[in-house]
Amino acid sequence: MATRTESVAAVCAAAKHASRLLATLDTQAKNDALERIAAGLEARVGEILEANLLDLEAGRESDLSTALLDRLALDERRIAAMAAGVRQIIALPDPVGEVVDGFRRPNGLEIRKVLVPLGVIAVVYEARPNVTIDAAALCLKSGNAVVLRGSSSATRSNAVLAQIAAQAAPAGAISILHGRDELTELVTQTAHVDLVIPRGGEGLKAALMEHATVPVIYAASGNCHVYVDSAADLQMASEIAINAKVQRPGVCNAAETLLVHREVAAAFLPQIARDLTAAGVELRGDEPSRELVPAMVEASEADWDTEYLALTLAVRVVDSLDEAIAHVQRHGTGHSEAIVTRDRAAARRFQREVDAACVYVNASTRFTDGGEFGMGAEIGNSTQKLHARGPIGLRELCTFKYLIEGDGQVRS
Amino acid sequence: MATRTESVAAVCAAAKHASRLLATLDTQAKNDALERIAAGLEARVGEILEANLLDLEAGRESDLSTALLDRLALDERRIAAMAAGVRQIIALPDPVGEVVDGFRRPNGLEIRKVLVPLGVIAVVYEARPNVTIDAAALCLKSGNAVVLRGSSSATRSNAVLAQIAAQAAPAGAISILHGRDELTELVTQTAHVDLVIPRGGEGLKAALMEHATVPVIYAASGNCHVYVDSAADLQMASEIAINAKVQRPGVCNAAETLLVHREVAAAFLPQIARDLTAAGVELRGDEPSRELVPAMVEASEADWDTEYLALTLAVRVVDSLDEAIAHVQRHGTGHSEAIVTRDRAAARRFQREVDAACVYVNASTRFTDGGEFGMGAEIGNSTQKLHARGPIGLRELCTFKYLIEGDGQVRS
Repeated sequence: MATRTESVAAVCAAAKHASRLLATLDTQAKNDALERIAAGLEARVGEILEANLLDLEAGRESDLSTALLDRLALDERRIAAMAAGVRQIIALPDPVGEVVDGFRRPNGLEIRKVLVPLGVIAVVYEARPNVTIDAAALCLKSGNAVVLRGSSSATRSNAVLAQIAAQAAPAGAISILHGRDELTELVTQTAHVDLVIPRGGEGLKAALMEHATVPVIYAASGNCHVYVDSAADLQMASEIAINAKVQRPGVCNAAETLLVHREVAAAFLPQIARDLTAAGVELRGDEPSRELVPAMVEASEADWDTEYLALTLAVRVVDSLDEAIAHVQRHGTGHSEAIVTRDRAAARRFQREVDAACVYVNASTRFTDGGEFGMGAEIGNSTQKLHARGPIGLRELCTFKYLIEGDGQVRS
Repeated sequence: MATRTESVAAVCAAAKHASRLLATLDTQAKNDALERIAAGLEARVGEILEANLLDLEAGRESDLSTALLDRLALDERRIAAMAAGVRQIIALPDPVGEVVDGFRRPNGLEIRKVLVPLGVIAVVYEARPNVTIDAAALCLKSGNAVVLRGSSSATRSNAVLAQIAAQAAPAGAISILHGRDELTELVTQTAHVDLVIPRGGEGLKAALMEHATVPVIYAASGNCHVYVDSAADLQMASEIAINAKVQRPGVCNAAETLLVHREVAAAFLPQIARDLTAAGVELRGDEPSRELVPAMVEASEADWDTEYLALTLAVRVVDSLDEAIAHVQRHGTGHSEAIVTRDRAAARRFQREVDAACVYVNASTRFTDGGEFGMGAEIGNSTQKLHARGPIGLRELCTFKYLIEGDGQVRS
């Protein structure tokens, strides 16, 4: 394994070297490189599809699930969407150099706190080949070098995409690794890599927890709740619950559990159950829910902790706001939580006491998204508390430094 | 070890429970608790000194170094300073609830990004017992529960101090662990602990790198440089270099290496060498420095990477600004770096290209400090890039959440 380890270290060292140049590039130079990536994608569609076809064939031979094959598959439309995504990133403001704070001290020192690139970011991801381009473009725009580590099932597709991106950028700025063995080497390159962002399931998270010595921001799963308070507008609650569950069930900000206050359960549950069932949702309820809607499957304890990412919804009746908050605190993953209520005090308590990246009043959890927040494209959603919480956009891919200017000040 | 592990987990679970209450306390309630800590320190001076005497006796018996015994020793003055420190924290603004960003989206959603406590912070520290009070007070003011883990040599002193703090705060908000074995258990309590802040040497850092699964911010060492450019005001350069080295050599923002541009070396080095030697500083120079100041000890490669924390200074002559920046990038630890120059372009390049928390132009590196930056008391200085870089004050002990309010918005 020595050679392989050396090669991971060499790739990361080259990325570190490139990161020094990237940090000083002006916005125009970065945008020009991004435009070369977009143009490269458009010029090399045939080559990309050819590589993707080989990945798909290999995937079928190794019995990849239909869902995974679908995530892996590219077509002209998906490639055009990648190019469009890159051009959206061109249009976003450059975060590097933004003065986020500044002050003059009594002794005359002038201090500015300024956004600067992190340096080298490793992005570890599964099936979808479009992440190769998204991640490369976001890192490039934020002045970071990136080391990509895609899944083995997408090796050929990712290799072509990464080559297109790498050729458009300064040497060493964008590179890609393949295969399982290199993960541990990559996430222990503390001398060269400043941050690891994994985009994947719990298995990947567990592997990183065990091995990573480089700091990690988990773009992790979301077990999100919609709580319908006793003072809710039930029509609004119904629209929000349906949207949060049905509009795109496979994403991390979709709702997985519906909590309903006992006082409105009889008025609310039978109708929403009909609407959700009509939309193809399977409901799993606790005892009081099933008394009102006998057709529901019985929920087990495990349901409260399951991120279905599918048209399934757990349903529970709670006796109070306190019980709703306690349920969310116990079972939530700190992603996106919503209350529907007309009661100002209940809304304030829910927002104050629920410990999550995004806490909604009278809106769908589905808005947790860099684009919806006005931050532009994102590399994922962080459910941890350090550095980035919620959407990880261009500014979250930066650190800062303090620039201090004086005229000879010394400390007494 | 099962019992012990259970007890660490139990302490951390109690802290997590307390953190929910702490997050909702208003500023007055937190300040009242802080005032009780200050008053408790003043009321129980005798008891603190008695416990400290036992620690000192045990330390002498186990051949603790004079330096460590000095850091361990308390007297009435030092206890009064601790109480004064707590009252300074009372006077600082409460970071919790600060709206750091906010916007209204085209669809009418109102989004606020608001500072909130991290939750539970574990602070792992060595000898100095005053850290017990500093860390407890900073965590309390920022609405966090704290689990302290002091060194075994200060067990008795820390126990009394932590008890005084704990009695003044809500149950579970402040607790203390002792002893080596518990470190691994503490830094793997991912369910209960949100952040570990180690204050200690490289050994502690290595242990945490190996074991910690909870996120860590290293309050780490500083190998800081003062670079005297060819366009420097040499009188100013002399004052800054002397201040950065001599004013308090044992701290992380003191300078460890002086870099001097060749063009001014002959005019600058002999005089500064006399001044520094007169101030008790031992100089270790490279070949060109020693040609100008033959009395210097010869520097070895290792000197460029040594944080002396003492009256020793490495000296090197460089041919250019590029060479100075390259030296800092290679040997610096990303803490505090200074250039002395009248050349605007040189100052800008140094600030842009040096990758450190604090980059100074014409000022001493000694200003890297929460108090000097106007942030108030700090728990340490971070040399890593995620979340907190530079002084770790009250705001850096917070995370944020997005509070989103709508009137029924759903995503289409």
